Amino acid sequence: MSKVKIAINGYGTIGKRIGDAVTAQNDMEIAGVVKTRPTFEANVAVDRGFDIYASSSDKTGAFNKAGIETSGTLEELLDKADLVVDCTPGGVGASYKKLYEKYGVKAIWQGGEDHEVAGFSFNSEANYNDAIGRDFTRVVSCNTTGLTRALFPLDQTYGIKKSRVTLMRRAADPGNIKSGPINAIIPNPISLPSHHGPDVNSILPHIEIATVAVKLSTTIMHFHALNVEMNKDFEPDDIIDLYASRPRIRFVSGDQNIKSTAEVMELARDLGRSRCDMFENVIWKDSISKYHGELYFFQAIHQESDVVPENIDAIRAMCELESDGAKSIEETNRTMGISK
Amino acid sequence: MSKVKIAINGYGTIGKRIGDAVTAQNDMEIAGVVKTRPTFEANVAVDRGFDIYASSSDKTGAFNKAGIETSGTLEELLDKADLVVDCTPGGVGASYKKLYEKYGVKAIWQGGEDHEVAGFSFNSEANYNDAIGRDFTRVVSCNTTGLTRALFPLDQTYGIKKSRVTLMRRAADPGNIKSGPINAIIPNPISLPSHHGPDVNSILPHIEIATVAVKLSTTIMHFHALNVEMNKDFEPDDIIDLYASRPRIRFVSGDQNIKSTAEVMELARDLGRSRCDMFENVIWKDSISKYHGELYFFQAIHQESDVVPENIDAIRAMCELESDGAKSIEETNRTMGISK
Repeated sequence: MSKVKIAINGYGTIGKRIGDAVTAQNDMEIAGVVKTRPTFEANVAVDRGFDIYASSSDKTGAFNKAGIETSGTLEELLDKADLVVDCTPGGVGASYKKLYEKYGVKAIWQGGEDHEVAGFSFNSEANYNDAIGRDFTRVVSCNTTGLTRALFPLDQTYGIKKSRVTLMRRAADPGNIKSGPINAIIPNPISLPSHHGPDVNSILPHIEIATVAVKLSTTIMHFHALNVEMNKDFEPDDIIDLYASRPRIRFVSGDQNIKSTAEVMELARDLGRSRCDMFENVIWKDSISKYHGELYFFQAIHQESDVVPENIDAIRAMCELESDGAKSIEETNRTMGISK
Repeated sequence: MSKVKIAINGYGTIGKRIGDAVTAQNDMEIAGVVKTRPTFEANVAVDRGFDIYASSSDKTGAFNKAGIETSGTLEELLDKADLVVDCTPGGVGASYKKLYEKYGVKAIWQGGEDHEVAGFSFNSEANYNDAIGRDFTRVVSCNTTGLTRALFPLDQTYGIKKSRVTLMRRAADPGNIKSGPINAIIPNPISLPSHHGPDVNSILPHIEIATVAVKLSTTIMHFHALNVEMNKDFEPDDIIDLYASRPRIRFVSGDQNIKSTAEVMELARDLGRSRCDMFENVIWKDSISKYHGELYFFQAIHQESDVVPENIDAIRAMCELESDGAKSIEETNRTMGISK
């Protein structure tokens, strides 16, 4: 079987991770990656052996000056590719839709774009089947991916009556030196609720969910405090068993001396994965509690990487490489080193 | 009328603020302050004109060496005082109870002690009357004071069916250089719920409240995301009117460009108050929302100072200086510069 050819438009935080994840698969390969400017990440792509394409012909000169050989422009790459993963900055991706249509290439957008860009929002466990054969798909944001992974199994098993979540967001990614705050808590947005609840509804439309969000002086992970009212009775041990059976949830606990997001990411560095990433939802097992009949727990989400395996599964569904979502997840996990 | 004589045992973050607040009143005065060691704060007390007492006679030498004159020991101070405000570190205060009893002095403890130390927990608006003439009172912690100020008026007016709160706590006070984290989110405690809900119940026993808490990389304020289910219907404007009528709630809004705790404390610096403190609950007016029939809003709490006016009111009630709680609050606010 010839491998499906993947273009990556935008080789930054998400794009470079998807580049490596695609390369790790047996059924897909990188046709090329598109950069706007010859930053250090263009050199990373060269080192990985990827062909570099300039976003447009007027950008080619800058790459030549920087000693980076380009194989052409975005349009030339689209002409060769079966599917493009759009990893351009949030809000920019939508502007490429016409071009992707023109070249008849399938496209995946990230969570920075609206649901309407693709008309379909994706999570591997929740709706793999609905992505099969699709031309356009949006993989939801890191926070929405994390919430969907947590809520979908609960809803399947117990039925969610209502969920209320406080999202504590990292201020910026670790490599970002422009953003604050250094010492503050920022309600963001101030008006409630935040967009995260409705975004979960783009995948699980029937769940009643209210989310509020703040931005914090930290760079390494998002953190969620979840409250879930369920239709059926449960005990904390039932929830632990349920999550233990899911492919992209990792338990940590205070007993193991993992008492913060910092220690979670220290563990990630020890796991030997690409870029020391933590692809799973990280749930504190000892936080899973029943109080006043409702479920409460804490989870941490690695904002730079949790959507990466979902992108791989989305490719597999859209290109009809695998009809069974569970098998795709298993293969993606295996190749990316995601194991319990 | 002769002024009530107040001893302050422990002249740190809270003690030094209560020292200034007592001095600002017409009906009470500082009899002396107790320090264990001659730190810079002992010099602050000297500058304020307060008599310094060593915590015990074996500590007196250290003060002499540092050139700070002491007027005796804690026991000698207790002998002269009508009431002692215990501002020793959390958990230490309880050990002084027998001594306070021995000298027949009334005592106020802070929120770091258990409710049982005093058998009565205080908030100016919620239970001033119950403190009148009492010998022992505990002023609840900064977070519990903030929650009580927010929840009590709601419960009075609408009846609270249930409240769920995420407390985002500052890691350390600004002058503390020993504590972390620099870059992490710490679920604290990991097991849910946190003690803050039960602590609210020490004042408002009938309210069903679930609290979860985290510690963050920030020093300047705590931050609460509140969810409240109420028995009667409401509109956000009703809640705004209700809070506008309360003496220790200050509104801010994103429209005023107050979009974070940092800007709140920048405002506090502009208000010209002692130590640039923010004694009120700070509620984002534009966060007050109704969603799925429930109330949501954000508030920030200045951990170093919000309990200070409550201590003044507690003194007034316990020493029977004022029988009307609203009048005590008004006088405390006036003298401390707390106005809308």
